[in-house]
Amino acid sequence: MGCDRDGMIWDELNEECGVFGIYGHPEAARLTYYGLHALQHRGQESAGICASDGERLTFHRGMGLVTEVFDAARLAKLRGHMAIGHVRYTTAGESRLENAQPLVFTTGAGSMALAHNGNLVNYRRIKHRLERQGSLFQTSSDTEVIAHLIARSGCEEIADGLRHALAQIQGAYALLVMTERKLVVALDPNGIRPLSLGRLGDGYVVASETCAFDAVGATYVRDVEPGELLVIDEGGLSCERFSAHARRAICTFEYIYFARPDSDVGGLNVHLARKRLGRKLAEEAPVDADVVTGVPDSSISAAIGYAEATGIPYELGLIKNRYVGRTFIQPTQALRAQGVRMKLSAVRQVVAGKRVVMIDDSIVRGTTSRHIVQLLREAGAKEVHVRISSPPVRHPCFYGIDTSTREELIAATRSVEEIRRAIGADSLYFLSLEGMLEAIGRPDGEADRGHCLACFTGCYPTALDDALASHGAEAGGARTRGRDS
Amino acid sequence: MGCDRDGMIWDELNEECGVFGIYGHPEAARLTYYGLHALQHRGQESAGICASDGERLTFHRGMGLVTEVFDAARLAKLRGHMAIGHVRYTTAGESRLENAQPLVFTTGAGSMALAHNGNLVNYRRIKHRLERQGSLFQTSSDTEVIAHLIARSGCEEIADGLRHALAQIQGAYALLVMTERKLVVALDPNGIRPLSLGRLGDGYVVASETCAFDAVGATYVRDVEPGELLVIDEGGLSCERFSAHARRAICTFEYIYFARPDSDVGGLNVHLARKRLGRKLAEEAPVDADVVTGVPDSSISAAIGYAEATGIPYELGLIKNRYVGRTFIQPTQALRAQGVRMKLSAVRQVVAGKRVVMIDDSIVRGTTSRHIVQLLREAGAKEVHVRISSPPVRHPCFYGIDTSTREELIAATRSVEEIRRAIGADSLYFLSLEGMLEAIGRPDGEADRGHCLACFTGCYPTALDDALASHGAEAGGARTRGRDS
Amino acid sequence: MGCDRDGMIWDELNEECGVFGIYGHPEAARLTYYGLHALQHRGQESAGICASDGERLTFHRGMGLVTEVFDAARLAKLRGHMAIGHVRYTTAGESRLENAQPLVFTTGAGSMALAHNGNLVNYRRIKHRLERQGSLFQTSSDTEVIAHLIARSGCEEIADGLRHALAQIQGAYALLVMTERKLVVALDPNGIRPLSLGRLGDGYVVASETCAFDAVGATYVRDVEPGELLVIDEGGLSCERFSAHARRAICTFEYIYFARPDSDVGGLNVHLARKRLGRKLAEEAPVDADVVTGVPDSSISAAIGYAEATGIPYELGLIKNRYVGRTFIQPTQALRAQGVRMKLSAVRQVVAGKRVVMIDDSIVRGTTSRHIVQLLREAGAKEVHVRISSPPVRHPCFYGIDTSTREELIAATRSVEEIRRAIGADSLYFLSLEGMLEAIGRPDGEADRGHCLACFTGCYPTALDDALASHGAEAGGARTRGRDS
Amino acid sequence: MGCDRDGMIWDELNEECGVFGIYGHPEAARLTYYGLHALQHRGQESAGICASDGERLTFHRGMGLVTEVFDAARLAKLRGHMAIGHVRYTTAGESRLENAQPLVFTTGAGSMALAHNGNLVNYRRIKHRLERQGSLFQTSSDTEVIAHLIARSGCEEIADGLRHALAQIQGAYALLVMTERKLVVALDPNGIRPLSLGRLGDGYVVASETCAFDAVGATYVRDVEPGELLVIDEGGLSCERFSAHARRAICTFEYIYFARPDSDVGGLNVHLARKRLGRKLAEEAPVDADVVTGVPDSSISAAIGYAEATGIPYELGLIKNRYVGRTFIQPTQALRAQGVRMKLSAVRQVVAGKRVVMIDDSIVRGTTSRHIVQLLREAGAKEVHVRISSPPVRHPCFYGIDTSTREELIAATRSVEEIRRAIGADSLYFLSLEGMLEAIGRPDGEADRGHCLACFTGCYPTALDDALASHGAEAGGARTRGRDS
Repeated sequence: MGCDRDGMIWDELNEECGVFGIYGHPEAARLTYYGLHALQHRGQESAGICASDGERLTFHRGMGLVTEVFDAARLAKLRGHMAIGHVRYTTAGESRLENAQPLVFTTGAGSMALAHNGNLVNYRRIKHRLERQGSLFQTSSDTEVIAHLIARSGCEEIADGLRHALAQIQGAYALLVMTERKLVVALDPNGIRPLSLGRLGDGYVVASETCAFDAVGATYVRDVEPGELLVIDEGGLSCERFSAHARRAICTFEYIYFARPDSDVGGLNVHLARKRLGRKLAEEAPVDADVVTGVPDSSISAAIGYAEATGIPYELGLIKNRYVGRTFIQPTQALRAQGVRMKLSAVRQVVAGKRVVMIDDSIVRGTTSRHIVQLLREAGAKEVHVRISSPPVRHPCFYGIDTSTREELIAATRSVEEIRRAIGADSLYFLSLEGMLEAIGRPDGEADRGHCLACFTGCYPTALDDALASHGAEAGGARTRGRDS
Repeated sequence: MGCDRDGMIWDELNEECGVFGIYGHPEAARLTYYGLHALQHRGQESAGICASDGERLTFHRGMGLVTEVFDAARLAKLRGHMAIGHVRYTTAGESRLENAQPLVFTTGAGSMALAHNGNLVNYRRIKHRLERQGSLFQTSSDTEVIAHLIARSGCEEIADGLRHALAQIQGAYALLVMTERKLVVALDPNGIRPLSLGRLGDGYVVASETCAFDAVGATYVRDVEPGELLVIDEGGLSCERFSAHARRAICTFEYIYFARPDSDVGGLNVHLARKRLGRKLAEEAPVDADVVTGVPDSSISAAIGYAEATGIPYELGLIKNRYVGRTFIQPTQALRAQGVRMKLSAVRQVVAGKRVVMIDDSIVRGTTSRHIVQLLREAGAKEVHVRISSPPVRHPCFYGIDTSTREELIAATRSVEEIRRAIGADSLYFLSLEGMLEAIGRPDGEADRGHCLACFTGCYPTALDDALASHGAEAGGARTRGRDS
Repeated sequence: MGCDRDGMIWDELNEECGVFGIYGHPEAARLTYYGLHALQHRGQESAGICASDGERLTFHRGMGLVTEVFDAARLAKLRGHMAIGHVRYTTAGESRLENAQPLVFTTGAGSMALAHNGNLVNYRRIKHRLERQGSLFQTSSDTEVIAHLIARSGCEEIADGLRHALAQIQGAYALLVMTERKLVVALDPNGIRPLSLGRLGDGYVVASETCAFDAVGATYVRDVEPGELLVIDEGGLSCERFSAHARRAICTFEYIYFARPDSDVGGLNVHLARKRLGRKLAEEAPVDADVVTGVPDSSISAAIGYAEATGIPYELGLIKNRYVGRTFIQPTQALRAQGVRMKLSAVRQVVAGKRVVMIDDSIVRGTTSRHIVQLLREAGAKEVHVRISSPPVRHPCFYGIDTSTREELIAATRSVEEIRRAIGADSLYFLSLEGMLEAIGRPDGEADRGHCLACFTGCYPTALDDALASHGAEAGGARTRGRDS
Repeated sequence: MGCDRDGMIWDELNEECGVFGIYGHPEAARLTYYGLHALQHRGQESAGICASDGERLTFHRGMGLVTEVFDAARLAKLRGHMAIGHVRYTTAGESRLENAQPLVFTTGAGSMALAHNGNLVNYRRIKHRLERQGSLFQTSSDTEVIAHLIARSGCEEIADGLRHALAQIQGAYALLVMTERKLVVALDPNGIRPLSLGRLGDGYVVASETCAFDAVGATYVRDVEPGELLVIDEGGLSCERFSAHARRAICTFEYIYFARPDSDVGGLNVHLARKRLGRKLAEEAPVDADVVTGVPDSSISAAIGYAEATGIPYELGLIKNRYVGRTFIQPTQALRAQGVRMKLSAVRQVVAGKRVVMIDDSIVRGTTSRHIVQLLREAGAKEVHVRISSPPVRHPCFYGIDTSTREELIAATRSVEEIRRAIGADSLYFLSLEGMLEAIGRPDGEADRGHCLACFTGCYPTALDDALASHGAEAGGARTRGRDS
């Protein structure tokens, strides 16, 4: 499962956030709590909920897991029939309460709360313009830029103000904005981050992933469309397209790594998608081996698929300690050298003397892969064949994933053979771009046009700010589909 | 994996504890921290470590996970080359800091710390006797009884005192006793709880499970033998048998449910044992179905084995939320009825329209099974066939597992068909006792003599106190092997 | 002493805040911590410090006392040679982290931190105007308005921006603004809140009270003048007057109640001022009695003065429990009726059978006074004569003191005789306005022109917003000196 | 007031504990909470309450202030009509939860809780004997010894068991023992620690100080007599003398320093006693000066007395910061040298250019006195005359006060003139023993026979263990009154 990613010394990708919104339930904040809990894998740094009873916004935010930030007393204070919530990612560096969402502001038109998953590529330029015009910023978040644009629009209606803002921003955003009486939802014209719509009784829910619907007993209706704006209020739900140039380019890594296996993204179940990635990998890169194992949790499904396709038995060759948390006392370097492990362990009786196929979802810096290969060898594996269920990541992501800079991306500067040697594997294979698209392709066969492949190809679906573009260019020649077209 | 068991409304079995001890490493307490962390699945209620530098014991105990109880400052205060540690289970009821272990006492012969996994069957009788003799008790723990017996022995040598105590107690105990200079280890004559011995450099480690050895970089040497007493001090390791009537009867549930899949118990890897249980289950109770799924985490291995043996694809049909913790705000009954879920969810695209085989390790009260079957049906499963990788649990455990009373054990009073109806399954099958023993049997074929089967058969390997015996009798006619022989 | 005022059921006045700033010391944040600690009596709700190393602002804020908000690790992160800090008052109602100061913003010209003691009387009008212009607000604080005005000024230099803002705001403000490189200080044209300047080595300090200078080893230089703007940077200190209409009207209650007895306000020591208030009270309202006692802590000095002037012995007739804190579990009404007390107790042997003069500094709603009179009677006092060291408070304060509304001010609607009966005293006397001014008058005899007497006379030193003015009018005919002149 | 003593770098005396007990009120635990809160000045390290509903003891203990250890939920769990509570002192060194009281045990006769103020002089010898007999100890507290003696008595009745124990112990003890149905109270034959009896409705209360009676609305009845045993149960109150050799020798320091000024000890109000000490000091050592000031809080009363007797005005020349708490970040040595102060400050306008009489209650190591004299001089005092309201402390206390060892007692090895030079005073005078006894003497004139003067004279009221006696001997020739007689 793509669940807990506590980071530590691991070079994993970090999803930016998860969002959840609900309209039309007397216990809106409480259901948001359960919804966020289901989305917890998308961010463990901070959590927050803002509720409205039609008259007044109340909110609470804090550092940590949803269950740590909220206790019963605090949750009970968030009254009303509508609410939005947010979970935020963990980074290695400083994390600040100020950046926790939902952000809440008052404007001339009333109060406003925002919860945002994604990343704007032109927010620095807008922020500088706004600062020059006398706007004050309290956070380093791009979300605050959206709030300023809405406030400066002078529009009384939130949807008008939001349309005004959306016309100026570029990038990835699955965005919820709530006022005292309305819940407004917007997805960027490329639909880079997932966002789904559901029903719960007479009300509506929106969430980054469908697993949150299951958590609150809601029914999936459909995915929010790229470039779509939804307004939910006492008049019900109204939908419109705010962009004439919408073209879906959903993040491929949602399938490969981020989303929970029980979520459906773009109508496709994530576990099944991963299994297909594993089967495709087996087709492209079979190997004569004794046992297949996956790196828990996100590569388990692909490993099962690989095992099924090859007939090699699937085993739990690597076990993850569930209790590694934020307060863990790290082993010193000396103890680590001595063999102290805290997160993963290899199962000796499963791998000793065996030729092992180790399935992982991606290689970022390569340090984790090297560590796992070494674990397997120390447990007696005779051979370790690494199979990666995605193509090499060669370009940085500007849409809300905390990828390393290009220098840190091992595949940006090294060949597959060089990587193989770096991680110490007997063989290494990355799934081809074509194979990947075949595995996760939409039923209508439009696979290549429906996904964001920027991190693999350097072809970005949106225009980029000059600074980013040059950064992308270094990263292997960034091209933006927006410009190409 | 048999890892986190947060309980909640679930009717799972609760293991009593995990123990870890180390002699001969300059960072003994720190390694104990890592060792306990690997054993965290055996108890999440409280944790504690006591260290000795040869002169003085220092200790710290607290409620919660190892990572919550200890921070770097507290760990740093526990100085010395030897240490013992303990993790304790979570129960629904009141949990008290007073009961956290290691217990630490001063006696005429110096200080003494005890860490104990198991349960004494005659401790109430001894406690009453000691109280009549003027002993004071501060905890409700049976471990304190052992300490009193040692203190009252009048022996200067801890090993002598412990021998004196062991002669009086009956039941299950994997016991570590540490004085300023010695680490003494004892396993009950039936070896009901697992306990293994390892080496780390020039020193020794003991642990409830071998996964703790991997965590600290130690090498497995052998299991501690039933009725064996080990003394580790500056003279090295000395071993002796304190009981003439030792006969191994290791708890079967360590294989079925408790132990981590990467641990070896009695020389057998737990994941592989579970896979064999699954294969055996497939032999005994095949079914015409589309998909096999296991209840995470402890039934995953058995499900894989069942899938392999039957050729039915293994899928992640049930997903567990990793973030359910102690501080979770439970849904109200109304919200629960409305479909709010927090722990498990079924994967609709995997099970909808399918005939599902759901593998679980055991059924205690039946409430969890009913809930899961319902989850699968709500997700669209056409049929749900439940296969249990152990025989029906019909008798209470007196050896350290928090089983329900006989009235709560659904299999104690109902037939398999009645249980099937109670949980709403299309079919239900429990692995046979013979099948189970075949799967986990020791290489020498002595399967039936090496395991404790009391919860299945009512035949207890030790004498029982009258009260317990009558309780056991109600539970279907308890017979004790001790009496039989 | 005017120190801890934990509120509870007490009808005390609440000071808004205390501020501290320092420029030119390598441990600026740490000294700010000690300075704020000395000012803790001015606010116990929240505390915060922002430091600058010349390049970057770092800050931390939290709810609670200075010692609770900061630990050594957090303090150590606030690096640099300049810092400002703030403590905020406790109110009975909701207190929000968002309102904790210093507020920190980024603008086109860089970063900016603000710490403010006082209250603006026209901030709502400005806020509405700014909101209409598209400004976003995150707090309910009037301080944020000042920040917006600075940001909208478009000035590169902070002093220019601040001058621009000051031209628009009215009311009471002792204000510190810090950028990466400058510390700017402003006091409103009436100098309603105290603010002093000191030196520490080659650097400068500013603080709400001089007791903070003693705490950090700084030397008092002078009070900041009404309408004065100070800029402190690497060029040293520069001073200017930003208002042509400055006329000091310092809050009288700083002497009567708020300030610490070891502080000097306007060059006059607070303890000595209070003693003079007590002596003057003795002149105006002597009484034939056996013992004088003061309500701790703020009325002790006045009681000593009264005792000295009358020759009646001063005794500790009332004792305050020092340990009443925020987490105190209040007695139920039933227990209170039964005599459970938690904050004050009367000393039976001191007051039994005696005619007691009880000195208090003020009467707001009258509930506290009634409670204390009753305490003394229960302890056996034969007579209780209440003497108040200030005139009756009949008008609300709009300058930063949390006075009740006019309806709650007992002296606004009742005669002295009615109040006497309400509190159950044998006699009651309030110090006359003239007597008070004589006691705290400035050496130059300009007493009546140097103080704000609005809460006694309804004559406000600044213009008021219409809403406030009408509120003041209800409160007995508010007149503003600004309008009069 | 003799209230908060936060210690820090101060060389103050530390009282061991305060005890409170109640029988016959439906909210016994809650009243105990308020009672302990009134006794908080006697110990801030830990607090605990044990309640009984006649069937079962429930208890809670924790580190910190009463208000920190208990929240409403925890307090609500302590049900029943009887309760005992305890507050414990703060020491500089390690403080352990294990030592928090009430201690709670189960014995053959049921459960038993103990709360103890005082110190046994022969507990080590008894403890060794008990350990040799096989008793286990979990704390380093002498109170546990009493519990063991009761348990070993074999008595069914708690009063019998306690009598058995009391026959063996020597030293100071104000002791509360509670079983499921009885509250038993004992005071040592010398009545060294204070203990009073009160009534509340139909029930009874006992407390270390009478201020706790005022806090809960109880009425003082009488002091518990030396060598008295009280049993309170459903049959009411029964009293007896358990010792034929009772002779009151109450600790003088309760008057001088420990007790709250609103408490009556031995029928004498503490504030008035201190005032008399101050008056007597004025008689013995007048001085030509301008102002009298006391070191807050415990020396305020004596300073007032001194001022009254000499006619020199009493002023607040020293101010104490109320907010110094356990979590205060201490200034570095460098900052301290630079003048950073956190606890006391001198009031410049009060002392500058003045000849100051500084009244303090005692000098232990001399460091605090030197610091305060220096503070006054830095604030401009022309002369500083130190007057101490007790004789020099030359001998260690073995009865529950954490005095320094003899080496640390400055008066044990230095003459008054040497001390004067050490602390930098212009003159120094200690109240004479005779003067002190005259001031606090009982009405019947038996002054010299009613007090423990051991720390002044080295004449101890009880026998001492050999080890202690030799320690006392070093300390100037310890003689015990027990031996003399």
